[in-house]
Amino acid sequence: METKVSSASQEVIISETAPTRLIGERINPTGKKRLQDALKSEDYDYIKELAISQVEAGADILDVNVVTPGVDEVALLPKVIELIMKTVEVPLCIDINNTAALKGALEVYEGKALINSVSMEEVSSNEVLPLVKEYGAAVIGLTIDDEGIPKEAGKRVEIAHRLVEKAEEYGIPREDIIMDCLCLTVGSDSNAGMETLEAIRRVKEELGVNQTLGASNISFGLPNRLLLNQTFLAIAIAAGLTCPTVNIAHVCSTVRAADLVLGRDRFAMRYIQDYRKQTGS
Amino acid sequence: METKVSSASQEVIISETAPTRLIGERINPTGKKRLQDALKSEDYDYIKELAISQVEAGADILDVNVVTPGVDEVALLPKVIELIMKTVEVPLCIDINNTAALKGALEVYEGKALINSVSMEEVSSNEVLPLVKEYGAAVIGLTIDDEGIPKEAGKRVEIAHRLVEKAEEYGIPREDIIMDCLCLTVGSDSNAGMETLEAIRRVKEELGVNQTLGASNISFGLPNRLLLNQTFLAIAIAAGLTCPTVNIAHVCSTVRAADLVLGRDRFAMRYIQDYRKQTGS
Repeated sequence: METKVSSASQEVIISETAPTRLIGERINPTGKKRLQDALKSEDYDYIKELAISQVEAGADILDVNVVTPGVDEVALLPKVIELIMKTVEVPLCIDINNTAALKGALEVYEGKALINSVSMEEVSSNEVLPLVKEYGAAVIGLTIDDEGIPKEAGKRVEIAHRLVEKAEEYGIPREDIIMDCLCLTVGSDSNAGMETLEAIRRVKEELGVNQTLGASNISFGLPNRLLLNQTFLAIAIAAGLTCPTVNIAHVCSTVRAADLVLGRDRFAMRYIQDYRKQTGS
Repeated sequence: METKVSSASQEVIISETAPTRLIGERINPTGKKRLQDALKSEDYDYIKELAISQVEAGADILDVNVVTPGVDEVALLPKVIELIMKTVEVPLCIDINNTAALKGALEVYEGKALINSVSMEEVSSNEVLPLVKEYGAAVIGLTIDDEGIPKEAGKRVEIAHRLVEKAEEYGIPREDIIMDCLCLTVGSDSNAGMETLEAIRRVKEELGVNQTLGASNISFGLPNRLLLNQTFLAIAIAAGLTCPTVNIAHVCSTVRAADLVLGRDRFAMRYIQDYRKQTGS
């Protein structure tokens, strides 16, 4: 199944037969003092720098989140979206849990945006899905409902089914939904990785939709997080993940290696290109 | 399915629910001048050092191969097996393509050995399987027949079926066969990784036997081989590999990370133990 998102000048096709597409996660102020300050003072240079460095590192899409205390996201989000559209050419993923701010961002966005996110929480689906339809966007669907994130793969898959059905009722085609089966840390539950992998496999098999994941949650509270994140990401890509949301600089080489061994990189061109970039050769 | 191999003092259980077992590949003189010289001059200190360092790095089983020009393997192999049995406690994998030398090694081996290897080449299966049965050993089965290594997963799986059937005709139980679906480099064929992964998945599903793989072949001729080997290994373990044949020092941490995210490491104990060893903390 192909999901297409675009900017004014670029289209990105997300699909199991294409290379893995990387959504850059760094424009998100959660826990990041410097970006919080930049957003509060409208210091656009730092935000531009974050956009450019992620694209240079291999980002196909950039997630944009401006939510931080002391900032009026309804006023700020459209401004930041416009700034980033002028700075880089990749499509953007509008990451906001506020309908007015989302609508404002969609109004200024040029192209087919990705919206992050909708869930099966009643408020979320009732407010977000109409906007996805109205603006012809694609949307990330979280396997959460009003009872929270289920621990078991089976219940997450069930939510995924309900979300796809509900979106289709709004006239949103299935290919415009990118599922996020969510991941909890193996630091507190040894089965957390397996539940997520099982959910990914079943969503791929039963729904066939594209899938993202903030894979770095897997390692929360454990040492050498990067190794765990890279290893889990490779396994999750083999299971059905097609567009992970990641720190590009940390995982791009691993993703290129996974694509190569999974037959998604003819003549190893992207792998060797990344190797040359990393080594400056 | 559980495969058990043992030394005089240790039993190793290989199974999909246990942690991944690592077979150390370094006692093999192919392309290694220093080991070739050590074998020719019967310099046992270097061989002991190779055994000890692999066990310290996390080897569960050691592969032992002494084949090099100018060495009488029939005379030397039993001596080296005895030497290593006196040096380390892990079970050994007798790696030889010479029936007389194999028999000599099995005569001196204490415990239940792993034999590397048998294939569906007529000479191989007719000569090796009777020895597997006679000595109550376990054996690595290669998916090769008289026509060579098939490119397609389907044909490798078919050879695996024939090999298991033929072994069972000799009275060798299925759990004593560890299949090796073989892997060729993605440097010359972009689909090589996928064919191997598909064969591993199908052998797991259809035969349920334990599986090894010399995973480092995947990266032959490409840059940054270690990254490709680690990435492929993680994906192959998720697909069904239970006891890869590897350079332990290079991949142990990745394998521990894979086991953790695959739910095979309760409370992250082995992962954290490895982290402490690597960092000396």
